[in-house]
Amino acid sequence: MKPDCIDLYSDTQTRPTPGMRAAMAQAVVGDEQSDDDPTTLQLCETVADLLGLEAGVFMPSGTMCNLVAILTHTRPGDELICDHQSHIYGTEAAGAAALAGVSICALPSPHGIFDVQQVIDAIRPATRTAPRSTLLTAEQTTNFSGGAVWPLPQLQAVRDAAHLHGLKCHLDGARLLNATAATGIAAAEYAAGWDSAWIDLSKGLGCPVGAVLCGSADFVRDAWQWKYRLGGAMRQSGILAAAGLYALEHHVEQLKDDHAHAQAIWRRLSACDLFRFDPARPSTNILRFTFDPESINAERFAERCRSEGVRVRAIGGNFIRVTTHLDVTAQDAETASQIMLSVARAMAMRA
Amino acid sequence: MKPDCIDLYSDTQTRPTPGMRAAMAQAVVGDEQSDDDPTTLQLCETVADLLGLEAGVFMPSGTMCNLVAILTHTRPGDELICDHQSHIYGTEAAGAAALAGVSICALPSPHGIFDVQQVIDAIRPATRTAPRSTLLTAEQTTNFSGGAVWPLPQLQAVRDAAHLHGLKCHLDGARLLNATAATGIAAAEYAAGWDSAWIDLSKGLGCPVGAVLCGSADFVRDAWQWKYRLGGAMRQSGILAAAGLYALEHHVEQLKDDHAHAQAIWRRLSACDLFRFDPARPSTNILRFTFDPESINAERFAERCRSEGVRVRAIGGNFIRVTTHLDVTAQDAETASQIMLSVARAMAMRA
Amino acid sequence: MKPDCIDLYSDTQTRPTPGMRAAMAQAVVGDEQSDDDPTTLQLCETVADLLGLEAGVFMPSGTMCNLVAILTHTRPGDELICDHQSHIYGTEAAGAAALAGVSICALPSPHGIFDVQQVIDAIRPATRTAPRSTLLTAEQTTNFSGGAVWPLPQLQAVRDAAHLHGLKCHLDGARLLNATAATGIAAAEYAAGWDSAWIDLSKGLGCPVGAVLCGSADFVRDAWQWKYRLGGAMRQSGILAAAGLYALEHHVEQLKDDHAHAQAIWRRLSACDLFRFDPARPSTNILRFTFDPESINAERFAERCRSEGVRVRAIGGNFIRVTTHLDVTAQDAETASQIMLSVARAMAMRA
Amino acid sequence: MKPDCIDLYSDTQTRPTPGMRAAMAQAVVGDEQSDDDPTTLQLCETVADLLGLEAGVFMPSGTMCNLVAILTHTRPGDELICDHQSHIYGTEAAGAAALAGVSICALPSPHGIFDVQQVIDAIRPATRTAPRSTLLTAEQTTNFSGGAVWPLPQLQAVRDAAHLHGLKCHLDGARLLNATAATGIAAAEYAAGWDSAWIDLSKGLGCPVGAVLCGSADFVRDAWQWKYRLGGAMRQSGILAAAGLYALEHHVEQLKDDHAHAQAIWRRLSACDLFRFDPARPSTNILRFTFDPESINAERFAERCRSEGVRVRAIGGNFIRVTTHLDVTAQDAETASQIMLSVARAMAMRA
Repeated sequence: MKPDCIDLYSDTQTRPTPGMRAAMAQAVVGDEQSDDDPTTLQLCETVADLLGLEAGVFMPSGTMCNLVAILTHTRPGDELICDHQSHIYGTEAAGAAALAGVSICALPSPHGIFDVQQVIDAIRPATRTAPRSTLLTAEQTTNFSGGAVWPLPQLQAVRDAAHLHGLKCHLDGARLLNATAATGIAAAEYAAGWDSAWIDLSKGLGCPVGAVLCGSADFVRDAWQWKYRLGGAMRQSGILAAAGLYALEHHVEQLKDDHAHAQAIWRRLSACDLFRFDPARPSTNILRFTFDPESINAERFAERCRSEGVRVRAIGGNFIRVTTHLDVTAQDAETASQIMLSVARAMAMRA
Repeated sequence: MKPDCIDLYSDTQTRPTPGMRAAMAQAVVGDEQSDDDPTTLQLCETVADLLGLEAGVFMPSGTMCNLVAILTHTRPGDELICDHQSHIYGTEAAGAAALAGVSICALPSPHGIFDVQQVIDAIRPATRTAPRSTLLTAEQTTNFSGGAVWPLPQLQAVRDAAHLHGLKCHLDGARLLNATAATGIAAAEYAAGWDSAWIDLSKGLGCPVGAVLCGSADFVRDAWQWKYRLGGAMRQSGILAAAGLYALEHHVEQLKDDHAHAQAIWRRLSACDLFRFDPARPSTNILRFTFDPESINAERFAERCRSEGVRVRAIGGNFIRVTTHLDVTAQDAETASQIMLSVARAMAMRA
Repeated sequence: MKPDCIDLYSDTQTRPTPGMRAAMAQAVVGDEQSDDDPTTLQLCETVADLLGLEAGVFMPSGTMCNLVAILTHTRPGDELICDHQSHIYGTEAAGAAALAGVSICALPSPHGIFDVQQVIDAIRPATRTAPRSTLLTAEQTTNFSGGAVWPLPQLQAVRDAAHLHGLKCHLDGARLLNATAATGIAAAEYAAGWDSAWIDLSKGLGCPVGAVLCGSADFVRDAWQWKYRLGGAMRQSGILAAAGLYALEHHVEQLKDDHAHAQAIWRRLSACDLFRFDPARPSTNILRFTFDPESINAERFAERCRSEGVRVRAIGGNFIRVTTHLDVTAQDAETASQIMLSVARAMAMRA
Repeated sequence: MKPDCIDLYSDTQTRPTPGMRAAMAQAVVGDEQSDDDPTTLQLCETVADLLGLEAGVFMPSGTMCNLVAILTHTRPGDELICDHQSHIYGTEAAGAAALAGVSICALPSPHGIFDVQQVIDAIRPATRTAPRSTLLTAEQTTNFSGGAVWPLPQLQAVRDAAHLHGLKCHLDGARLLNATAATGIAAAEYAAGWDSAWIDLSKGLGCPVGAVLCGSADFVRDAWQWKYRLGGAMRQSGILAAAGLYALEHHVEQLKDDHAHAQAIWRRLSACDLFRFDPARPSTNILRFTFDPESINAERFAERCRSEGVRVRAIGGNFIRVTTHLDVTAQDAETASQIMLSVARAMAMRA
């Protein structure tokens, strides 16, 4: 099925390529619940190696990676510290509270990147009356804050501050390989010293389903039971894992193209006064902007673009998020830029 | 990968056939979270029709079907009533309590089939101090109780008794199509009047991953959010759904062969004094037996069979469960019977 | 206020005596949340000594003692093992599941007293799919099972079996001092080796409010935070604790009178064919009986007695529970027996 | 016991007066769980009348009032909106998440008083992926934000905005009667239209234990079961309720004295450059201040004052909270002011 639009809504919209489909069709499979699916086992090992962590477990989604990590690291009554725009806080349907009994201390931080002082201020005293601060999470890159990349020293600094106060640290690496593509710093360097970390396969890597959560062998053993309890244990998941292995071999390099396309869109739009980018320019495959004049409404902008053949996402705060990915060509980026420009101009005129 | 044994451990061990793999490779897909995967949508509609229910939602596992149904039908502090051998009570890692805050009243019932009086006795009075009885669940067929089939009138009777007292009713139909294959009664007849019901695709139907949970449109809307919150929302799940559609077209009829193979094994083993079947004979694709003399240990029996090339499952209470499925041929059944006979005889002699 | 009936509904119905009221009125108090209420501290120490445990925490109810012990000893997804008639399972509004995420394995046992083999059979294997068996609880004496007393060796045996398998052990001692009054065995002997234990002040001891939960100092520290989180932390609770100290000094000996009154009622009623006692005779202050002929309905019997000036409790299964306590005199017991006899006879005649 | 210091730590530190003790000693009592304690029933009715709400339920603490209201108004996965300094967010040990599965959206607002726009911005869209915004809570007066009083129109405006979007509204009225004492606006005017509201008896009113949660009759019925499930159901609570009735008769008027004492302290301290008040001046019985120079450390200030005979509370952010109450005389206020001044001066000199 050919998409009926240039889909910049999310990098989750990618469809498996013929090569990936062939890999899935030929996958050697077994029952993952008996630890007996060789392709799934191979994928978990490959990702654990990539992240420099001991072991991995395959998950049906990135949301389950976050939820299982929280369930494994915490107890009810604990509090986790994260950015206020993070996926865990606003876009996981309150799973941390609903299913893990965990409170969230959400830090207002520029582009999702907080600092050591914020972490220290957020850690509650160990009293009977306070939530127990026990987990820090960071997103690399920072999805709804505009795809920014944590500088490695700052990522290490907040991790160390948290560890010093006895907290565990969990890295939401949904787009960790985008950070690597942008900076050349290895995923294992970013993930080093974190108690858990994961990458998503169904975003920039272009797989249909799945993510891999990694950590110590003990962590993964406990995580496996939570995965099962949540209903995330599958059977011949090697079909899906084969797509993951294929993507790690064939789709990592192309993330740089996605970044180049994002730059191209930014160059086009930022030349026009109507667009206000925040961050000022994209680092990876995500752009976030709002409008000047403010009277241009993001929801309406998204609707108008959609009717012109471009799908973008209004994400609150009158922001638009634009995401490039495997299924977006350089030509698509150019066409989409033109359409966004003309829609914004038309809306500005009417304002 | 050719299995290294005749695998009677579970019907979850099936591997996708070439036809099914081809169907997956050609699946038309989109993002299921945008309600945009046409194959997944078609599968959900097909299963909802099959069960005579309004709508359906695709799930990564049957365990998630049960958990989401519980989360959707109940509130913390509620109690559900089910058989004491049911999957929900003993084999879902206490998910009902851990994630839904729901207590379980587990009825000791012959072959997993309880009666109206048991249901009525189990419903707690509506007092401040009692758990609130709000949900009844039944398994059709009854997995760990030996694959027995609820007679339609009895299934209807417990459903009506529960409804009369204000409870919701959920049908765990992991192997509902086996009941249909055994009795000729349509799945929709079994599911009629239940507030939710589901079938598994990864058991007798031979798919790698997935199940479909059905109910009213309102139920499915709420269930979708719980699926998302649990981390069960996938992306291009049409790959998996294509296997489900293929199986519903090509693998339903063959369930009768599985039943015939189970009968063949039973005929062989029941002719030998050492095996005590409970139920006395199989109705579907599951056999459950223990031993006479009791000194034959089920765990040891399973190990010995395994080393002889047959995998069966010790399920507690010194019981063995044997399951036939798509990957078990008539010849496999014959060979496995011989091996089980010789193992039991050897163990009896040593006893 | 003089009660308008002989109240045998429960030993929770006792009203504070003049001496107890005077003790409360003169209590020296502070803020218990600052560990600053001397009377509450003294009570906790006194009860911990009585039970031979390290420390104690004052609670507004016995239900909170059980709930906090479960919350402290377990994690969501765990399972506790107890008798099927126990207060925790059927009379705490599913708090274990709702608030601690804990499943219950309820053993059908005679008079609430189970044996080692039942415990061993109930412990689940340590697999991904099973609830984690982590806590055993026993009631001494067994409330809804008829006030039976666990023989010390059997209580020790189930505790040791549980410990051997890595479970914690919690003793619900709502009426532990009744066991002591009946057998002469010290409360500390019963509680020895249990990971937590508590006694209720508002039952046979006659206080208006409160119970004390004891265990190791570490256990009590964690329990305190759960008490606070549940809203059970009070302020100048010394008012209530003073009643507890008074009761421990003045009301323990009188428990034997309660037992004598229960015996007197039993002697009267058991001489009549209409009453079937289970247990066959009372050991403590609780009697449980049903009727022969079965056509005598327990709910109706309770209503008829109530209209004749005697309050008893229908507790399900067509059983009546009768409880003697501080506010029931020998004369009350005699009068109540007469009334119960005449009500039963009238109902039998009409049957 | 005479306190060994002037205790400005909290208005929870009050000790019952002789009159209150006499009232407790003479209380007519019954079993509240049988709705049979006349004094407790009378107190609940009295407070419900005071708040203009339909019914009330007695609770062992204000924390339980908040927790039960949350449990009754919400379901797991919901989100509540409140100020970021509110007791519910930071000082109830994450009970909302741990026990109700509810996420918190904490608004940064001046003195705990947020506005309609903040509420509207905080309400999440009704999507599968967002927490469900279902409850708004406000504190009248705003404890850790300095005892500020919500102006009635603003309190009504946020309530109406929340209702318009389908949220329930819960008023944490721990110190609601202080607002009334300060403004002359009746408690019922403040509570009008809120779905639940409560007042604390153990703060300014001087009772040892308790609070009363009010709402519609349906709300209170459901709240009662949660109270029971949490272990908050007591027995002869009339002892405690009698103190509440006494306080409502004798201690309400004196709240104005507490306010006058707070003003006196403020006049003294604000004349000194070292103290920076926030709010700039007290409205009720609470003062909050920090220091200029910032090098004066609040924790150390509190310790030094304690050793000089005055107990105040360091509450984070280098703030000191000072609270006046029933047990603080005009002379105490004067003495404490002198001591605080001299401590601050000594610390400033050393800085």
